[in-house]
Amino acid sequence: MQSTERALEGLLSTYHELNNAFVPRVPGPPTPLDFLQHVRRNQPVVFTGVMEGWGALEQWNDRYLREKMEGCNIDVAITPLGNADSIVSVDGVEHFVKPYTSSESFSSFMDYLRSRHMDASSTPPSTIKYAQSQDGNLSKEFTVLASDLPSSLAFADSALSHTPDAVNVWIGNSDSTSALHKDNYENLYCQVLGKKNFILLSPLEGICVREKTFPVASYDDQGKVVVEEGQSVNCWPSVDPDVGDSGKWWGKARPISVELHRGEVLYLPALWYHKVFQEEGDEGICCAVNYWYDMDFEGPFYSMVQFVRDCAKDCESLEGGNEQEKHIPR
Amino acid sequence: MQSTERALEGLLSTYHELNNAFVPRVPGPPTPLDFLQHVRRNQPVVFTGVMEGWGALEQWNDRYLREKMEGCNIDVAITPLGNADSIVSVDGVEHFVKPYTSSESFSSFMDYLRSRHMDASSTPPSTIKYAQSQDGNLSKEFTVLASDLPSSLAFADSALSHTPDAVNVWIGNSDSTSALHKDNYENLYCQVLGKKNFILLSPLEGICVREKTFPVASYDDQGKVVVEEGQSVNCWPSVDPDVGDSGKWWGKARPISVELHRGEVLYLPALWYHKVFQEEGDEGICCAVNYWYDMDFEGPFYSMVQFVRDCAKDCESLEGGNEQEKHIPR
Repeated sequence: MQSTERALEGLLSTYHELNNAFVPRVPGPPTPLDFLQHVRRNQPVVFTGVMEGWGALEQWNDRYLREKMEGCNIDVAITPLGNADSIVSVDGVEHFVKPYTSSESFSSFMDYLRSRHMDASSTPPSTIKYAQSQDGNLSKEFTVLASDLPSSLAFADSALSHTPDAVNVWIGNSDSTSALHKDNYENLYCQVLGKKNFILLSPLEGICVREKTFPVASYDDQGKVVVEEGQSVNCWPSVDPDVGDSGKWWGKARPISVELHRGEVLYLPALWYHKVFQEEGDEGICCAVNYWYDMDFEGPFYSMVQFVRDCAKDCESLEGGNEQEKHIPR
Repeated sequence: MQSTERALEGLLSTYHELNNAFVPRVPGPPTPLDFLQHVRRNQPVVFTGVMEGWGALEQWNDRYLREKMEGCNIDVAITPLGNADSIVSVDGVEHFVKPYTSSESFSSFMDYLRSRHMDASSTPPSTIKYAQSQDGNLSKEFTVLASDLPSSLAFADSALSHTPDAVNVWIGNSDSTSALHKDNYENLYCQVLGKKNFILLSPLEGICVREKTFPVASYDDQGKVVVEEGQSVNCWPSVDPDVGDSGKWWGKARPISVELHRGEVLYLPALWYHKVFQEEGDEGICCAVNYWYDMDFEGPFYSMVQFVRDCAKDCESLEGGNEQEKHIPR
């Protein structure tokens, strides 16, 4: 096992040596070929200029959105801490907790954001709302906004040989955070209003973020956690990169921060871990649109990331005893 | 260690499940974007049509080559078995043996190929010659032929963002074989005369081909092996894919065969293991030109292949005892 540990240490140091510790800003839109260079290296990059001329960038504000969405209901994630899909301790046992989801009128959701913005210095409310239904909502509840942005990104369609699997609108404020996680998607994240801050870790750093299997729970409409018996989620990172971890492997991680400003597009490559904060803009709104493209499972990349994860499991299980004590005090 | 073994087994089966067991033939030349799709998947492919209009394809034959190369000397690799850069047992110990290299006139080398072709049914001569100086010889000893083919391949220059590191001419006959090996290059292999047969194994199958460290030797001008004291070569495959190996890992390999015909171009991705046979054409000549482009060390690919190799070393060392006995009888 020690030799696997050494090999994993070598992997992290070789990878860090050969790859940037920052996310470059590149004038866009890229050509399909230029974009594919980033994809093949699985390297994040921020493109400027991609959103020039988009109605979303030019027109979206509190008033415009209310007008267009008048009479529409949307799904809103509701949590006590602004923590959708995160790890929460329930009776001393860590659970993967999903938000409560409620349908409400767009205008009442915007009223909520506005009133919170007017009173931003106060402590957060006991109920935090985030419109983040990640089910291709641009063609569902936000369909009246669809003409304000392209249905797909031509450079990515061409480089990835298909159109996006989902396009999602995200509307929230500074109270909400997305906990560290990864997606099986090539992600193009387009900032419309406000700002987002990402903390990124490469797919090879699974051992540093201690992926684990967690029992599943959900918040109810009172903000209480209800365990979903018999359900579990696999390979979910347990380390919060803002807190860190006293273990050896977190010390070998190399988290990368990037700020995404209005009008910028982050290419977040498949399987990168990301934690996301947001800062609302002048009207109390942080708004983004993201394009999810299916990742490519062919070639060696996906198979090798799975392999690294398999090897990491063994090394983690060596440290397991301490880990249990530290995270699940009884 | 058993868990690393299981992880390696999982890696091979996942990779084989997600990737073709054959090399597709695709009409070319590809666009840079199409070519980069193959590169990013590290998947071999044969392109037809790339060499249309090349003087090399239209004009090269015994007579033309002799005329152009009149008065020129070339480096020729000379071995007793047609086995440049291969593993040979010396006093019961396997060595990595390099060919003897001699400079001779191009016309006398062509006389050698012709006379062998006239008498092809006989047993091979005790001295087998192969013009295979892999040092960018098109711009050196074969410079008078350089105008018969492009100095680089436009689609690859554009996809890989640079021109080739070396362009090599290969001239030999059916007596010569290149033993299984890999290169740190993206390789575009262009068949001009005769035919080549490749046996390919992916970079993840290092454990299947039992890479080892070997002491180095060279043939002298008499075909005798001279050990080069203190020299060794690392990570050289020890399994001959035509013979195989009784070990567990060879059983999990998935060698892929591909025939490369006159006018076809094989894209042989970086780090793929390849063994190469050749079949001479009508005039006794097998001739090819290859373009070596530097591989990309950024992104996760190179780091992860190194990691797989590191993990494989441990599993191999478990089997080491038997292996020693089998390969190095004393």
